[in-house]
Amino acid sequence: MSDTIKYLLEEERIPKSWYNIQADLPQPLAPVLHPGTKQPIGPDDLAPLFPMALIQQEVTTEREVEIPEPVREIYKQWRPSPLFRARRLEKVLDTPARIYYKYEGVSPAGSHKPNTAVAQAFYNKEAGIKRISTETGAGQWGSSLAFAGAFFGLEIKVFMVRVSFNQKPYRKALMEAYGATCVASPSNETQSGRAILEQRPDHPGSLGIAISEAVEVAAQNADTNYALGSVLNHVLLHQTVVGQEAMLQMEMANDYPDVIVGCTGGGSNFAGIVFPFLGEQLRGGKKVRVVAVEPAACPSLTRGKFAYDFGDTAHLTPLVKMHTLGSTFTPPGFHAGGLRYHGMAPLVSHVQDLGLIESVGLHQKGCFAAGVQIARSEGILPAPEANHAIKGAIDEALKCKEEGVSRAILFNFCGHGHFDMQAYMDYFADKLVDQDYDPQELAMALAGLPSVPA
Amino acid sequence: MSDTIKYLLEEERIPKSWYNIQADLPQPLAPVLHPGTKQPIGPDDLAPLFPMALIQQEVTTEREVEIPEPVREIYKQWRPSPLFRARRLEKVLDTPARIYYKYEGVSPAGSHKPNTAVAQAFYNKEAGIKRISTETGAGQWGSSLAFAGAFFGLEIKVFMVRVSFNQKPYRKALMEAYGATCVASPSNETQSGRAILEQRPDHPGSLGIAISEAVEVAAQNADTNYALGSVLNHVLLHQTVVGQEAMLQMEMANDYPDVIVGCTGGGSNFAGIVFPFLGEQLRGGKKVRVVAVEPAACPSLTRGKFAYDFGDTAHLTPLVKMHTLGSTFTPPGFHAGGLRYHGMAPLVSHVQDLGLIESVGLHQKGCFAAGVQIARSEGILPAPEANHAIKGAIDEALKCKEEGVSRAILFNFCGHGHFDMQAYMDYFADKLVDQDYDPQELAMALAGLPSVPA
Repeated sequence: MSDTIKYLLEEERIPKSWYNIQADLPQPLAPVLHPGTKQPIGPDDLAPLFPMALIQQEVTTEREVEIPEPVREIYKQWRPSPLFRARRLEKVLDTPARIYYKYEGVSPAGSHKPNTAVAQAFYNKEAGIKRISTETGAGQWGSSLAFAGAFFGLEIKVFMVRVSFNQKPYRKALMEAYGATCVASPSNETQSGRAILEQRPDHPGSLGIAISEAVEVAAQNADTNYALGSVLNHVLLHQTVVGQEAMLQMEMANDYPDVIVGCTGGGSNFAGIVFPFLGEQLRGGKKVRVVAVEPAACPSLTRGKFAYDFGDTAHLTPLVKMHTLGSTFTPPGFHAGGLRYHGMAPLVSHVQDLGLIESVGLHQKGCFAAGVQIARSEGILPAPEANHAIKGAIDEALKCKEEGVSRAILFNFCGHGHFDMQAYMDYFADKLVDQDYDPQELAMALAGLPSVPA
Repeated sequence: MSDTIKYLLEEERIPKSWYNIQADLPQPLAPVLHPGTKQPIGPDDLAPLFPMALIQQEVTTEREVEIPEPVREIYKQWRPSPLFRARRLEKVLDTPARIYYKYEGVSPAGSHKPNTAVAQAFYNKEAGIKRISTETGAGQWGSSLAFAGAFFGLEIKVFMVRVSFNQKPYRKALMEAYGATCVASPSNETQSGRAILEQRPDHPGSLGIAISEAVEVAAQNADTNYALGSVLNHVLLHQTVVGQEAMLQMEMANDYPDVIVGCTGGGSNFAGIVFPFLGEQLRGGKKVRVVAVEPAACPSLTRGKFAYDFGDTAHLTPLVKMHTLGSTFTPPGFHAGGLRYHGMAPLVSHVQDLGLIESVGLHQKGCFAAGVQIARSEGILPAPEANHAIKGAIDEALKCKEEGVSRAILFNFCGHGHFDMQAYMDYFADKLVDQDYDPQELAMALAGLPSVPA
């Protein structure tokens, strides 16, 4: 058998609609609540932040949401993305498993994030918006929105978690090359930022704080909207192009996944590859085992509480029911900035609550070892976030070896690591530590969850 | 008309052979001379450095050289690479020109370099070699050979020009992730390196010095060969997959280039896209105008002498006839390390001498402006080397606008700039200077050319 097996789709097979798992769920999502009244919010409550088209996508239960032609047009720049059979990795592992990966690093920003960035920029442009404010952790999302903004002539303002901002000056440079502006968060530009800096001028920042800042800017400026790179239903919806393509490509391979593995931070790359397959199962089709891999140091799915919580630290967002570590939880420093969020997408939380997926927490050193192993066998150096999915997939493949069974394992290789080389240098210099979260901090953060009447 | 026009070939249309322009040249290349005897060298003289298969490719005049199946197999990981019509850039420039670019940044190392790295690793492995030593400037070549070495289980030792080594720690990290070792050149590990460090301990290095070091290591170790990432005939030969694919893709576009633009350092990405089209012309087919773009600060084609010279600084290599600035010439610091070589590929030099191509020297700031322009219109951030080709192509497109004619312009977008963000930061901070070469230094370096009896 050939060593490089790449399944490529024709351009016209880029999906024409996004798949909405809300159509197939046995129980609907819990409603989003207003933080003041604790009553379900309506579309108008979100209108200061999002264009109406995205608000509708947030709540629709239609199974298929049409992808606007200008969005598909830009998708063509890098989509359909390839699906590979990891033959060389299989040989190195000496496993009977059939390992497949969908590679989203082919996008110009280097990850799956442009799938939703382009869509969000499009709808905002259509709504007459001039500027979008957003947050970014590792920088994958910020540079993806910057890329999309350049295509639609939108001004992009990015609040980047300070610790990542300092670790990754090159991500900022990439955003600027695309014409965006990027500041470290907490910043002096917002009330939320200033409040935190007053208490602690050297605060390392968090996604929760950066979200507060970006939301504040959008809420106060009529020509400015807010965009989020993960967590929300419409973001996960846009990512389903990944899984829909992967289904067609698995068909080309004449195979079907027994297990799907994805890494989870906010949940969007995971949902992107998983939901189309889960939908198939929910409609009575083939069953698939699904494993969400998260950092052991920021374990919302494995150690969090399934409860109503704020999406940000300053409590400017509505309340959503999700697996959460508490909005004040600050995970220890580790090198997958994209996975350092206190919450989990409501839809991902919900499918775990329904027993449709499993989750596991892994430490970073083993994940980096897996990343190096795949770089040397498959040739692509992964982002630290993707390393979690890779380690999860390798563990599944080694289980196959132990049990002497051949299973098809599919994972989402959500991005390359070209902007994460400092992390690899630290790994090779043995400077990485497998830190755990602080149980006391977690207990405190969970104790601070907002009370919501049943 | 659609805004994203991407021409993708089926996998089976990856070329089955490399195209050798030596078969179609009206006059043969000048022979390579032994540095001592000044007589033409034979295959045995090169045997300490290269496997015989590559030595044969260096001199063959067969038009087609078969690509071994294991090499094509690895090419499939990222080939065929896409050809884009730059519609958005055309609109921004408001030009009647039809601009096409072949994008080689899709390879795992981010440039065209793996096209030859994989081939060279294969032939060395076949010949029983355990280790390859090489030099690298910007790091594109070093990381490509590291990538190829990982696939064939070869040890890779890279001497990286010190100034780039210091500017780009992340390129080194990438090489190490692929399992290679990388040291700054001049180093203490070789006689050539030590000799230079004795004279000037803070020497910034040059490609010529790094080549000396790599050649020395290969010459002294029976299990070690040397590999070069550009300049040599067999390297240019391997790159012709680029132009061959582009020909098929221009056919899909129902168009043919009036002008082809490439950037030139050693000449390999340029030859890769240009030679298949030039061959067509030489065999009586369509004519094409060809423009080589080089840095004004290292102007081998526009200001060098077409003469016999050494490929390296310590004069360990044979003498080749090429456009050269003299092997002791050190260009001023600028941000396209891949274009900082004193010489030019003999084949590229020869076709310029035959009047088949034009050349132009450009300053870096204008090239970076062009790079930012294409990032914001086409979405891909280019390497500083590629920016030279882009600026050249934009200049041609603006000429079309001035003249009110529509010409088809094709250029080689040879790599992305993910590892060159410091250069972009310097550009945005207005820290870049359009330095020229020192005419006195050039005169001295040219005066030092070896004398070769006619």
